[in-house]
Amino acid sequence: IETKLPKVGTTIFSVMSQLALDHKAVNLGQGFPDFEPPQPLRDAITRAMAEGRNQYAPGIGLQPLREQIALKTERLYGHKLDPNTEVTVTSGATEALFAAIAAVVRAGDEVIVFDPAYDSYEPAIELQGARAVHIPLLAPSFGIDWQRVRDAITPRTRMILINSPHNPTGAVLSAADLDELAAIVRDTEIVVLSDEVYEHIVYDGAQHESVLRHPELAARSFVVSSFGKTYHCTGWKLGYAVAPKALSAEFRKVHQYLTFCTFHPAQVAFAEFMASTPEHYLELPAFYQEKRDRFRELIKPSRFKLLDVPGGYFQLVDYSAISDKDDVAFCEWMVKEGGVAAIPLTPFYDKAPGTHYLRLCFAKSDATMEAAAERLCKL
Amino acid sequence: IETKLPKVGTTIFSVMSQLALDHKAVNLGQGFPDFEPPQPLRDAITRAMAEGRNQYAPGIGLQPLREQIALKTERLYGHKLDPNTEVTVTSGATEALFAAIAAVVRAGDEVIVFDPAYDSYEPAIELQGARAVHIPLLAPSFGIDWQRVRDAITPRTRMILINSPHNPTGAVLSAADLDELAAIVRDTEIVVLSDEVYEHIVYDGAQHESVLRHPELAARSFVVSSFGKTYHCTGWKLGYAVAPKALSAEFRKVHQYLTFCTFHPAQVAFAEFMASTPEHYLELPAFYQEKRDRFRELIKPSRFKLLDVPGGYFQLVDYSAISDKDDVAFCEWMVKEGGVAAIPLTPFYDKAPGTHYLRLCFAKSDATMEAAAERLCKL
Ligand SMILES: CSCCC(=O)C(=O)O
Ligand SMILES: CSCCC(=O)C(=O)O
Repeated sequence: IETKLPKVGTTIFSVMSQLALDHKAVNLGQGFPDFEPPQPLRDAITRAMAEGRNQYAPGIGLQPLREQIALKTERLYGHKLDPNTEVTVTSGATEALFAAIAAVVRAGDEVIVFDPAYDSYEPAIELQGARAVHIPLLAPSFGIDWQRVRDAITPRTRMILINSPHNPTGAVLSAADLDELAAIVRDTEIVVLSDEVYEHIVYDGAQHESVLRHPELAARSFVVSSFGKTYHCTGWKLGYAVAPKALSAEFRKVHQYLTFCTFHPAQVAFAEFMASTPEHYLELPAFYQEKRDRFRELIKPSRFKLLDVPGGYFQLVDYSAISDKDDVAFCEWMVKEGGVAAIPLTPFYDKAPGTHYLRLCFAKSDATMEAAAERLCKL
Repeated sequence: IETKLPKVGTTIFSVMSQLALDHKAVNLGQGFPDFEPPQPLRDAITRAMAEGRNQYAPGIGLQPLREQIALKTERLYGHKLDPNTEVTVTSGATEALFAAIAAVVRAGDEVIVFDPAYDSYEPAIELQGARAVHIPLLAPSFGIDWQRVRDAITPRTRMILINSPHNPTGAVLSAADLDELAAIVRDTEIVVLSDEVYEHIVYDGAQHESVLRHPELAARSFVVSSFGKTYHCTGWKLGYAVAPKALSAEFRKVHQYLTFCTFHPAQVAFAEFMASTPEHYLELPAFYQEKRDRFRELIKPSRFKLLDVPGGYFQLVDYSAISDKDDVAFCEWMVKEGGVAAIPLTPFYDKAPGTHYLRLCFAKSDATMEAAAERLCKL
């Protein structure tokens, strides 16, 4: 059997998590917290199961959950959504990204992605028979060079895929960036796919510039988010996509045949919890800022050079002072010999720049951060 | 935005379930039980959440769950599977079907499907830029005319998609059918996709003829099954696909970017429950046979003509004595005026034969069956 995805192996996240297990390393690789989702959420799932919410949910997601998503979006970004036609609940952000791409990208199309790019984007594009056009983010800010974007637009450009706060770099887009994007897509048929799974995790009082704050962009964008990242339950696989009615209709056509619907009891639980406890996501920036600052403090004595972290829950570090191995080799060495799993950046590039960066996840308890830091400081 | 799926609207299952709600009808449409999954399974999910199994499971599925699937498969079908390389846990059978198709079907390929065909098959095929080649099942047995299959094979035939026990008709394939299929695909590169979500629901002492009983077919097949159908929890969205290593590798490449993984606590729960309680699926044929027989008894006084039900949990009935409306119109009328939701067969055909059949789900409590029967007997 000849592969349809010749460039794809096992995702680096699975590879590094398995190595972490094999070598009993502290796992700062794959992006997940090592603390728990709120107890009331877990209780609500148990209750929903007891109350018989164990059969199919509506394919588009439970009505009260879609309403809560619309309420949150209006509250945070001033954007009104119709929960019946513009919000769709998915099996995690991964499904939402795939469905958005599959819904509008056709064979022969081009999709602009920014490198380093989350590793699911390109395979999803290629499975449509389309091509990812890679634009590297600027170094060392990881901002977007909009002139390069303008130069990359062709009649085949169907979609521009942005991601802010950015994984793996932590960079965040500004309101000016969104204006640049809007000017580029104006009077075209280009759709924007905005991966905002870290929407609630921005630092130093900054505001997350969702495309939903920008009416012109909101009118042509899919916006994807994740309950897993926001509520510390990546293993529950709940996410959503919002988009204007016409785009949502296409999205739903695909979604209904990709997964149909998502674990029903969790939808009941989130609908309740979002209604009763909006402070959860309101307090998230402060919650993670403390972790970020603590982690940076802990590894300051190490020979890693710390890059800035404007958003997300990953710390990029430069390991040049420790090794001149390439980043994949260094991460393999570090998980085996150093006892800490990280994520190299090369897998997220079409043409890797050969930088000596790696990504460390600080969505961790103090004890985990301390154990990791102790090891990292020895390298 | 021009649609990629011009033939697709909202799936008939969602349409009929919504109509059932709107008109307070008894819902015998969409296929789900109205009774609950075993209590120990629900308790095990609660326990798994309390024990902190709330972050990503391995993308391919939890090791002990994959082992249980392999054990079951060996026990039932005498087929040994390597849980590490041949079993993948998915977000329901729907995702498994989509991933199998996306993994091997390419633009320009042909996939043979048998009409009436479950409604997710063709859109999944079309999203690959491929074409579904529709072969109608024989009337009234709903068996396969293998000569028509032989005649339909072309150099572009990439996959044959079979489904037994068959949804919506309940027909089951025989060992002789599998031999016919094997003879057709022998010395070709054709892959078989076998949708066996009702594998445990066959009647009158018959044995389910899984392609996994047939070594030659097993060596080139994806086999898809569903925890939702087997354990009365369609809303938990857990399923799996098994396939030989090379096919599984391609399947996993797609799966990791479709959903990555599936609700982790349920995987823990099923691994435990399958180990402790194999009698659950062993007793399933008798459990559903009682329901099938009871339902048939209850609607015998009606003017519906009952077709045979060799497998699955649906009763096909002929409503010719009641109406000469087409089946979609009749189902709309019946949910509104008759107070019972059913599923028409036309949406599952490329060229609908104009039969006056509809599908009724009998995976229901006695009370629900009685309420439905009372209404059905009035029509
Ligand atoms: C789906 S596994 C990857 C999780 C993640 O978002 C990351 O580590 O970047
Ligand atoms: C995914 S909704 C459809 C459920 C089902 O399998 C059926 O009703 O046939």
